[in-house]
Amino acid sequence: MAQVIEIDDPSDARLEDFRDLSTADRRPDRPGGRGLVIAEGVIVVQRLLASPYPPRALLGVPRRIAELEPELAGVDVPAYATSAEVMAEVVGFHLNRGVLAAADRAPRPTAEQLIAGSRLLAVLEGVGDHENLGALFRNAAALGVDGVLLGAGCSDPLYRRSVRVSMGHVLRVPFTELSPWPDGLDLLRRHGFTVAAMTPRRQARPLAATGLGGGKVAVVLGSEGPGLTEAAIEAADLTVRIPMAAGVDSLNVATAAAVAFHALGNP
Amino acid sequence: MAQVIEIDDPSDARLEDFRDLSTADRRPDRPGGRGLVIAEGVIVVQRLLASPYPPRALLGVPRRIAELEPELAGVDVPAYATSAEVMAEVVGFHLNRGVLAAADRAPRPTAEQLIAGSRLLAVLEGVGDHENLGALFRNAAALGVDGVLLGAGCSDPLYRRSVRVSMGHVLRVPFTELSPWPDGLDLLRRHGFTVAAMTPRRQARPLAATGLGGGKVAVVLGSEGPGLTEAAIEAADLTVRIPMAAGVDSLNVATAAAVAFHALGNP
Repeated sequence: MAQVIEIDDPSDARLEDFRDLSTADRRPDRPGGRGLVIAEGVIVVQRLLASPYPPRALLGVPRRIAELEPELAGVDVPAYATSAEVMAEVVGFHLNRGVLAAADRAPRPTAEQLIAGSRLLAVLEGVGDHENLGALFRNAAALGVDGVLLGAGCSDPLYRRSVRVSMGHVLRVPFTELSPWPDGLDLLRRHGFTVAAMTPRRQARPLAATGLGGGKVAVVLGSEGPGLTEAAIEAADLTVRIPMAAGVDSLNVATAAAVAFHALGNP
Repeated sequence: MAQVIEIDDPSDARLEDFRDLSTADRRPDRPGGRGLVIAEGVIVVQRLLASPYPPRALLGVPRRIAELEPELAGVDVPAYATSAEVMAEVVGFHLNRGVLAAADRAPRPTAEQLIAGSRLLAVLEGVGDHENLGALFRNAAALGVDGVLLGAGCSDPLYRRSVRVSMGHVLRVPFTELSPWPDGLDLLRRHGFTVAAMTPRRQARPLAATGLGGGKVAVVLGSEGPGLTEAAIEAADLTVRIPMAAGVDSLNVATAAAVAFHALGNP
């Protein structure tokens, strides 16, 4: 059972995990970056507590901590209760969601582990925008994607903004690196996957006519601007496009992913 | 040909259309709200200049105005050139897109005009969030939706943030009100449309198995939280759902719309 501890002093050393979030987690990989997983709001904290990431502590206003009582019953971490003002002073900005949880990272599965037992996978290249990444994980979770493989140039899905935009689903959908890139795509083929690269190119097959429904499919997606690299496209088994109206550049990458996940997951 | 006029003084009366944008356009329907259409950034300004909305003026840094030279050749409006600092002082915040255009509204088509000649339409109820609305129009434009009908409780698609998030596509995709709501859906039926209400309800038909491909379809979408009202669902011909994984609440309304537009537009 989590212990609720009231704290009035924003400089209390026990709140270290939550201090200056907007700067501290900007580069979690760098010295000074703590690399913690931060969940914001009741629903995302619930998903964190149900995830493989070991929780360290909660910080929230009493009302929000009380809402989490059922989930906290089985968890042995401190829950620091304080006012909205003290919270704002600790984290460095006003949080209208009223509760935060901090967790440690957990070992990722190997690509082999993630691929085995999956049927529909997303593979990303150069998806650097944290909001797009978060939205993509939310869509992956909703549309039955079994896991996400990160090729070259992707941001950290556990960055705070990405966790928030994913509504916590980045904590549920397993992900790991796929390297070397793009040669690692061979691993998918060896496990019986067809590797489908999404591209707006005219020569690509329309999504509704791929004939891929039912089999194991890995959908390879690039970032919104430049799209997939030539090397990634060449390493795929086929190219697939979403038919677009003339004069429209492209869909947002998370939206294009959702369209592809639905079409390939519901043949 | 637009006339480029250099302005140094942020209080210059000719810049009235662009003053204090974050407050002025918050409630364009209220006294003091100017109800102008505002486009931000080169691409969106290009789409505005190609739209039915009559331009009034541009404001931008010289480099961005120069980029618009081809589009401005055929337009008789003043283009006020100034520094980024003066622009920020006029509009009330820093614009990193460097150019704005203001336009008047234009008469909307009647629902009858919009429906005639269309094959795939979106019908919205209670979509109040301007970003969702903008994203939905972007997806509608990309995926070949012929128009958008606004049922009860929708926000103004021409609000500044909605225009920006739509990447200007809200200026291209025709839209108008459908009233009375939801009885106005009958008008669609009289024009040969099947009215399909999107809902996560278990009894609804999976999107991939509606059998609607090829015919005239109107996709009715509600807002993310509450979804469609009972009255709207009852007024539809059938209910349709996107199959979702357990434990996931829903997709963002613009994303759900994209999935539906693709599935129903590419049978």
